[in-house]
Amino acid sequence: MDICSKIYAGVSFLGEYSLEDFCAVGVSPRGKKEGELQTIIGSGAVIRTHTVIYAGNTIGDNFQTGNKVNIREENQIGNNVSIGTLSIIEHHVTIKDNVRIHSQVFIPEYSCLEEDAWIGPCVVFTNARYPRSPKVKESLKGPYIKRGAKIGANSTLLPSVVIGENALIGAGTVVTADVPDNAVVVGNPGKIINTINKLPY
Amino acid sequence: MDICSKIYAGVSFLGEYSLEDFCAVGVSPRGKKEGELQTIIGSGAVIRTHTVIYAGNTIGDNFQTGNKVNIREENQIGNNVSIGTLSIIEHHVTIKDNVRIHSQVFIPEYSCLEEDAWIGPCVVFTNARYPRSPKVKESLKGPYIKRGAKIGANSTLLPSVVIGENALIGAGTVVTADVPDNAVVVGNPGKIINTINKLPY
Amino acid sequence: MDICSKIYAGVSFLGEYSLEDFCAVGVSPRGKKEGELQTIIGSGAVIRTHTVIYAGNTIGDNFQTGNKVNIREENQIGNNVSIGTLSIIEHHVTIKDNVRIHSQVFIPEYSCLEEDAWIGPCVVFTNARYPRSPKVKESLKGPYIKRGAKIGANSTLLPSVVIGENALIGAGTVVTADVPDNAVVVGNPGKIINTINKLPY
Repeated sequence: MDICSKIYAGVSFLGEYSLEDFCAVGVSPRGKKEGELQTIIGSGAVIRTHTVIYAGNTIGDNFQTGNKVNIREENQIGNNVSIGTLSIIEHHVTIKDNVRIHSQVFIPEYSCLEEDAWIGPCVVFTNARYPRSPKVKESLKGPYIKRGAKIGANSTLLPSVVIGENALIGAGTVVTADVPDNAVVVGNPGKIINTINKLPY
Repeated sequence: MDICSKIYAGVSFLGEYSLEDFCAVGVSPRGKKEGELQTIIGSGAVIRTHTVIYAGNTIGDNFQTGNKVNIREENQIGNNVSIGTLSIIEHHVTIKDNVRIHSQVFIPEYSCLEEDAWIGPCVVFTNARYPRSPKVKESLKGPYIKRGAKIGANSTLLPSVVIGENALIGAGTVVTADVPDNAVVVGNPGKIINTINKLPY
Repeated sequence: MDICSKIYAGVSFLGEYSLEDFCAVGVSPRGKKEGELQTIIGSGAVIRTHTVIYAGNTIGDNFQTGNKVNIREENQIGNNVSIGTLSIIEHHVTIKDNVRIHSQVFIPEYSCLEEDAWIGPCVVFTNARYPRSPKVKESLKGPYIKRGAKIGANSTLLPSVVIGENALIGAGTVVTADVPDNAVVVGNPGKIINTINKLPY
């Protein structure tokens, strides 16, 4: 068997890239024809096996995916971004430079991750306070992760929470309210227990 | 490369359908020969890339899967059901009409979801109170989700819990006991904090 | 379409095996050439669709994967090990005989699972106390699961915790400290609530 991945019309790789097997790049979302949305991927991309990238994404240089990543349409993704194995990025997400998203993460539409944010394995963001309520589609808003914040493994973030710069969310936390810059938060519901500058780094 | 999915013997699509690449439909479970179990899928199915559906499922009209969904054998699935990207449905599960299961969900054998249930991303159902105990195989029983209930993201449901009609389970909850109709439950362990009719929908 | 999986140079199957479609076995990790690391898989292996196994693994007899499993390089895996659908094993992990890892589990590098351990669906292990801190790479240490311990669904284990023999961690627990042999632990943070010999098995 030779190379076995599909690249649809409308995809531009801006430099060298590695595309492994069993991938689909530039998939049209519902209601769009093939090639109607442009997909731009900067130089140096490494896209590992079984990754699916929908059309309409704008992605910077040195992009990396793990295996089996899923990226929906119309996201803005900066330079040096890594998205880990089996993670999902929904649509209309903003991911800035040097963000690292680990494995099995779920990032829904209308989330924003600023520069250098780190998202641990199995973290779940949400964007709908009252799922299936009458006005839910108009009010979807995901979390906003400020520069350098770190979200521990298997944490759950409620819709529209803001995580402050360099804050650290402990593993398994349920974050129900905004978190100040440099705070350390753990528990269900999450409580502030420390600040970053007092940790024994 | 042309279309690249496998449909095994015993699969009947009852109308138009879209089957994307890298899928396998009608896979025989252990101990069954190819074609021994019938797989019936109603009209209007959309089965997205990398989805695996084992043999012996009966599925209604307008079925949708996200990418990379896994569905084991011998489930009963109604009309207008959607199962999100990277979710797993084990075997002998009942899913009634208009159920929406979001992404990265785990639904084990002997679970039941009534009409209009909504299951958020990364929700985990369980069915074995004492894993690997001597009689575990005889006593497997998953959660029972009543009509219109909504289970928030990354919640964990203990075996055999019953979630009442239109109840709302908050994100990150660990549900250890039955939940009454219309109750709102959050925390670890989950506690009732409100009723649906008092929420600012 | 015929069989559609890739086996790279350096892979040895020591007996009969079943390799389903859309898999990649013996993938070179970054910095290694194809065939540079040997991959050894004992007799009786069943490797289900969309599974990816990197090079440099040593795996015993009767190995089973579910669909869409991901196994990174240089792990030591014993006999009769099962790794469930959509689970991830990172690199340098030790998994001893008769371990069962369920679905959508995340096991990071430098974790150890002794004989007969059972890991429920969606369990998350961690190995970095302070992600992205200056010395994080030197101090990575995953959990150590002793013989016969059982970890309930969607639990989160902090880095380097030791789970005692035959201990039982309840579903949804966040384990922040070592757990004695035979203890039953639940909650966030996890607390001891019982011992195994008092459970109504």
